[in-house]
Amino acid sequence: MRKPNVAILGATGAVGAEFITLIEEREFPFNTLKLLASARSAGTTLVVNGKKYIVEEAKPESFEDIDIALFAGGSISKSLAPEAVKRGAIVIDNSSAFRMDPEVPLVVPEVNPEDIDKHKGIIANPNCSTIIMALGLKPLHDLSPIKRIVVSTYQAVSGAGKEGLEELEKQVSASVNHEPVVANILPTTSCPKHYPIAFNVIPQIDIFLENDYTKEEMKMVYETQKIFHDDTIQVVPTTVRVPVYRSHSESVLVETESSVSVEDFKAACRTFKGLQVKDNPMEQIYPMPLYTSNQNDCEIGRIRKDLYNEKGMNFWIVGDQIRKGAALNALQIAEYLIEKQSF
Amino acid sequence: MRKPNVAILGATGAVGAEFITLIEEREFPFNTLKLLASARSAGTTLVVNGKKYIVEEAKPESFEDIDIALFAGGSISKSLAPEAVKRGAIVIDNSSAFRMDPEVPLVVPEVNPEDIDKHKGIIANPNCSTIIMALGLKPLHDLSPIKRIVVSTYQAVSGAGKEGLEELEKQVSASVNHEPVVANILPTTSCPKHYPIAFNVIPQIDIFLENDYTKEEMKMVYETQKIFHDDTIQVVPTTVRVPVYRSHSESVLVETESSVSVEDFKAACRTFKGLQVKDNPMEQIYPMPLYTSNQNDCEIGRIRKDLYNEKGMNFWIVGDQIRKGAALNALQIAEYLIEKQSF
Repeated sequence: MRKPNVAILGATGAVGAEFITLIEEREFPFNTLKLLASARSAGTTLVVNGKKYIVEEAKPESFEDIDIALFAGGSISKSLAPEAVKRGAIVIDNSSAFRMDPEVPLVVPEVNPEDIDKHKGIIANPNCSTIIMALGLKPLHDLSPIKRIVVSTYQAVSGAGKEGLEELEKQVSASVNHEPVVANILPTTSCPKHYPIAFNVIPQIDIFLENDYTKEEMKMVYETQKIFHDDTIQVVPTTVRVPVYRSHSESVLVETESSVSVEDFKAACRTFKGLQVKDNPMEQIYPMPLYTSNQNDCEIGRIRKDLYNEKGMNFWIVGDQIRKGAALNALQIAEYLIEKQSF
Repeated sequence: MRKPNVAILGATGAVGAEFITLIEEREFPFNTLKLLASARSAGTTLVVNGKKYIVEEAKPESFEDIDIALFAGGSISKSLAPEAVKRGAIVIDNSSAFRMDPEVPLVVPEVNPEDIDKHKGIIANPNCSTIIMALGLKPLHDLSPIKRIVVSTYQAVSGAGKEGLEELEKQVSASVNHEPVVANILPTTSCPKHYPIAFNVIPQIDIFLENDYTKEEMKMVYETQKIFHDDTIQVVPTTVRVPVYRSHSESVLVETESSVSVEDFKAACRTFKGLQVKDNPMEQIYPMPLYTSNQNDCEIGRIRKDLYNEKGMNFWIVGDQIRKGAALNALQIAEYLIEKQSF
């Protein structure tokens, strides 16, 4: 089996670090590996499979001879992805730059793997909150098509990268030591105002759009419709940051075309790849973000019917935002390409 | 104006402490004040308006000569409330014991004050998450009757009393000092398993019922219907504990009988007593629990239409669980009785 020459762009960030962890954990097959980052981080030494790699500054020429380029995300994707493609690489991009491009497949491998084959050089990784929700939606959708979703999220600070993680850590330490709590990162660096996340909840993720929904919320709308190939699916989202480090939680109410029993949905979840059912209320078993971090599978629980609508199903889904919500999903796409020897 | 003889049952707990703070802050009029608690806490000295009070053990005879008895909550209400009533007191009870009793009014003074007059000795204070949601619902309900509510909550640890507050504090300190994190209280002392709340989110508040909803969730259903005198109102709740100290947040989607404009709803909220509108997305103004604690008013924001349903309205509401969610609401009921000289 042919192994690809792989590049990781953004190797020094939170998602980049997770790419490396997962490459080691999954014995991800590669021929050569190149670690890339911005000029600021170039020169850093990172160890992969016991071997030292010096992080290089990402430039268009960095992608010569690269088969698969894993882009960790950020604004750099927009300019460098076409350059990488021009040089023959397939880009798996974790940024939002290409997700809604009709030429670019948007893929959760457990949901719509067949879309990978349609790529023209770039394959987009969905937004973390969309990926995690999609894992819970798919087994239900297969039983009866999804019509409408009302979702409220409980998102971890890791969604704001290493800086988000450090900010919560620092704020909590400051609070314990009776020092002033400083906020520089959340809700988003691109907005002028920052609020503490420690002991707080912030109902803003990403910037606000003209319709008074946030960009994160509208990502959940459009990306879900694209992944499920149905732009009549209604999604009414509220996305919220909570003081949790790594895993996102989501409270989801779904209306399907016909009635699905709780038993059938649970059974479908149990055999669904990437999902673990943690659902035994009487034994107090349900998913919690503290226990799903650094884990590949998402966990689903609190499965119960809408109290009034036979076609309504509630669930609570939790997943590691940096793993399944970012690096793992991208790596699974790469593994699909390698298995098909299609790079 | 006649002033009542007042007793506070549960004076040494979190809600009890808030009763005392509010009595001072609001210059609540009373003739005599008696502080009561369990035998375990009897003998404690507390200061109210600069005067020392020794907490007495609560017994049936404690309520002789009491006009208004403020019950902070807990299982003791069930046995002592009838005893207090027998002795001529009006009991304003913060426990869940009498809320669904058809003989007992369930009151949020900004929403259904007229129900206070129907009491037969006991007036019940609704559950904290219900009270806070009701404040946001009422101005909308007045514009067009509410048909259906989907709500996900982000509830503070203060809902589990002083012990809940201390547990989060201890867990966070332990975590910062790299000591083991111990969980003894949450999600609820009446269940065998306890989980850390620091850096976690727990989708269980109170015990689970046979329908796989929690008791807290079903309280939001039945109490909302009772407060609004309409048991056809649908409420689909998911109640969740987050690592926040005092204020509850709620993501609410409401369907009304006819379409209400965002402008009309905002205008109605602005003039609604007990509510402050914090809603300017472009200026990043929205309610957050860190900034509503120790404040009487609830804050409402993120007001926006359902993306598909003209009759659907989203809002995000935040309020101090110990104040408006408990002690303040009860005290407002007492103030109503005093103003009407009806005790």
